[in-house]
Amino acid sequence: MDSAYRYEQDTLYCEQVALADVASREGTPCYVYSKSAILRRLRAYQEAFGSTPHAICYAVKANGNLSLLRLLAEEGAGFDIVSGGELFRVLKAGGKASSVVFSGVGKTADEIAYALDQGIYGFNCESEGELALIDTLAERRGVTARVAVRVNPDVDAATHPYISTGLREHKFGIDIAEVEAVYERARALKHLSMEGVSCHIGSQILDPAPMLEAAGRLVALAQRLREKGFDIRHLDLGGGVGVPYRPGESSPSITEFVTALCALAEGSGLRVLLEPGRSLVAEAGMLLTRVLYRKRNGKKEFVIVDASMTDLIRPALYGAYHGILPLRRAHRGVIRADVVGPVCETGDFLARGREIDNVLPGDLLAVCTAGAYGFAQASNYNARPRPVEVLIDGDNYSVIRTRESYDDLVRGE
Amino acid sequence: MDSAYRYEQDTLYCEQVALADVASREGTPCYVYSKSAILRRLRAYQEAFGSTPHAICYAVKANGNLSLLRLLAEEGAGFDIVSGGELFRVLKAGGKASSVVFSGVGKTADEIAYALDQGIYGFNCESEGELALIDTLAERRGVTARVAVRVNPDVDAATHPYISTGLREHKFGIDIAEVEAVYERARALKHLSMEGVSCHIGSQILDPAPMLEAAGRLVALAQRLREKGFDIRHLDLGGGVGVPYRPGESSPSITEFVTALCALAEGSGLRVLLEPGRSLVAEAGMLLTRVLYRKRNGKKEFVIVDASMTDLIRPALYGAYHGILPLRRAHRGVIRADVVGPVCETGDFLARGREIDNVLPGDLLAVCTAGAYGFAQASNYNARPRPVEVLIDGDNYSVIRTRESYDDLVRGE
Repeated sequence: MDSAYRYEQDTLYCEQVALADVASREGTPCYVYSKSAILRRLRAYQEAFGSTPHAICYAVKANGNLSLLRLLAEEGAGFDIVSGGELFRVLKAGGKASSVVFSGVGKTADEIAYALDQGIYGFNCESEGELALIDTLAERRGVTARVAVRVNPDVDAATHPYISTGLREHKFGIDIAEVEAVYERARALKHLSMEGVSCHIGSQILDPAPMLEAAGRLVALAQRLREKGFDIRHLDLGGGVGVPYRPGESSPSITEFVTALCALAEGSGLRVLLEPGRSLVAEAGMLLTRVLYRKRNGKKEFVIVDASMTDLIRPALYGAYHGILPLRRAHRGVIRADVVGPVCETGDFLARGREIDNVLPGDLLAVCTAGAYGFAQASNYNARPRPVEVLIDGDNYSVIRTRESYDDLVRGE
Repeated sequence: MDSAYRYEQDTLYCEQVALADVASREGTPCYVYSKSAILRRLRAYQEAFGSTPHAICYAVKANGNLSLLRLLAEEGAGFDIVSGGELFRVLKAGGKASSVVFSGVGKTADEIAYALDQGIYGFNCESEGELALIDTLAERRGVTARVAVRVNPDVDAATHPYISTGLREHKFGIDIAEVEAVYERARALKHLSMEGVSCHIGSQILDPAPMLEAAGRLVALAQRLREKGFDIRHLDLGGGVGVPYRPGESSPSITEFVTALCALAEGSGLRVLLEPGRSLVAEAGMLLTRVLYRKRNGKKEFVIVDASMTDLIRPALYGAYHGILPLRRAHRGVIRADVVGPVCETGDFLARGREIDNVLPGDLLAVCTAGAYGFAQASNYNARPRPVEVLIDGDNYSVIRTRESYDDLVRGE
């Protein structure tokens, strides 16, 4: 649990706010985020880079709430986007287009045009078709687009198959064995400035070794491309480090990881871009929920809560583990139970076979480490309004997204 | 493919509308539904019941679009809901509260109060805690709530584990061995009318045998409860039949399945409730998408389209198969490819290793059998606006939900 969260006299606090008070006032389910927890991590990245030229481009897909983006922009972060909608979010939050890199395998012509018109920093390109499309759209506008080709380094990231992205069999990037020929052919595209190389081997990586291996391959590639006359200026090394979800799980230190990256890039003069998402916000967030019912089926104990896979799909989609804590410790002993939501699917669970406090209906729980890929993947399945989001700052909190209403569900119909 | 869909001179039509025209005018991704395909199935259920007292309660969770609910209400369907939001949808669409049954393991007090105030037909109750809560809320209102206890018949539905719900280890229902004692204890709850029994063993069941086995156990249970003095009047047998997703897959005939159910209930005088969702709308719908890029990584061929797991999560979440068809056959031969979306996850795929037309960027494709659990589970992940929905009726179509805008993404923030 992040140090912004702690128990005081059996009550769980985030910074100086008792979470049960937030849950009572704002209702449940409710996402809370700690401002200090987010900024502490951003600063760890910033400080670890030291004098190495760099940009920390927050991966908006992890959590795109405008208030979080505004906070990060104010503190000097840039942004990694994967859609026109994410660029809209960044600009709406006051982020500068010039701090934005645009990644993703399926950029549409409209999205590329929007990004060119706004003047983003550059594109991480995923295919020759995309290079040609960006060139055409840049030409029409009389501009030059800054481009890095995303390289598929064929490194196994050892994470969940759905978020491992650096193998040859994946849709992402261009095979490192073929990429130099792609740069050569791109010389003909006069409205592209081929000045970067990029890779991204996956998310939630707890062993930094494969990331450093990929980074090493990328530095070597940049050197080879320079020898061929390409003015390579930046290296986009993809995501940040993984975070601990399970008790006892340890994650790489941000400082050590970045220091190792900087050592690899040292002397190259290359600007290092990094796109941390999860590692900035996951541990800063919790999903608050209320117990509706207790139930026993056969030998199995169920705790039915008012949050579900519509609020947090990670357990159902990735088999993810999230810690479950009581907002008030009641000292009634512990039980082993499945913590499940109201959605009519057996896949709607938040925890399985978990030892938790012996809760009663009405009690409040926190689902831990929920700040990343939580609200971002929420849906209205089962006609469930999406939850409220709250940002906690010292002894204050503010609602940064209101709970959806029933009217919101049918908008546009 | 449903008979409402067919090729004419290499162009795919839904009823009398060329789908490429819809895609061009409304953009992609775009959900289309055939009115006639939905109504044909509703009528098959209605006719198969014949003179058996019954109610067909459409499972709103499969697709809750207001226009589809309105259509079904006008044609005599009732509704199976699992949340207050779904009740709101039904009422907004002109459905009658008296035609509604409320299912689900996690009904909140607010949702139960809303349902009682609106006067729904009845509740399928999942736990003794819920029975007590409904009784309390009914008492406060001076009303009596019609209740069926959802029985867990411990029958293996042989479907995907996430949508199989009838085993003792699942969160749903009350063990059939214990349920008679629950009815006995509920005699003390004076604002409940214990007049039904219900079960639901899962969704997308292609072998009707387990459903009929569960139904048989339920009829026997109703008989035993009557002998104990309970005035059991209805039998809620849960969902309808599965649908064919894969080529060559066959699904039970609606007529034969319902006829077999009616035979089991014959002579009991019980009103039979059925809650078909998928079987009414899945085959009636397609998701239209445009090819953005072609790409080869190593030996793997990728077709990158503008629809993704945010529009249709079934392949990622359940490993589901959906057919892929061209909106215009180009006779360029076939390829074997992964059809993937723009979302930055390896889990973002619509089809894997699939033989499809040799498409080029700009070509249009249909993802088949997408009318159920498609839009219903859509999200704004990666800041992607949710797609437009279109209802096709003969040679006309109407937009029944507008495409979301970027402004829609940040509402409430």
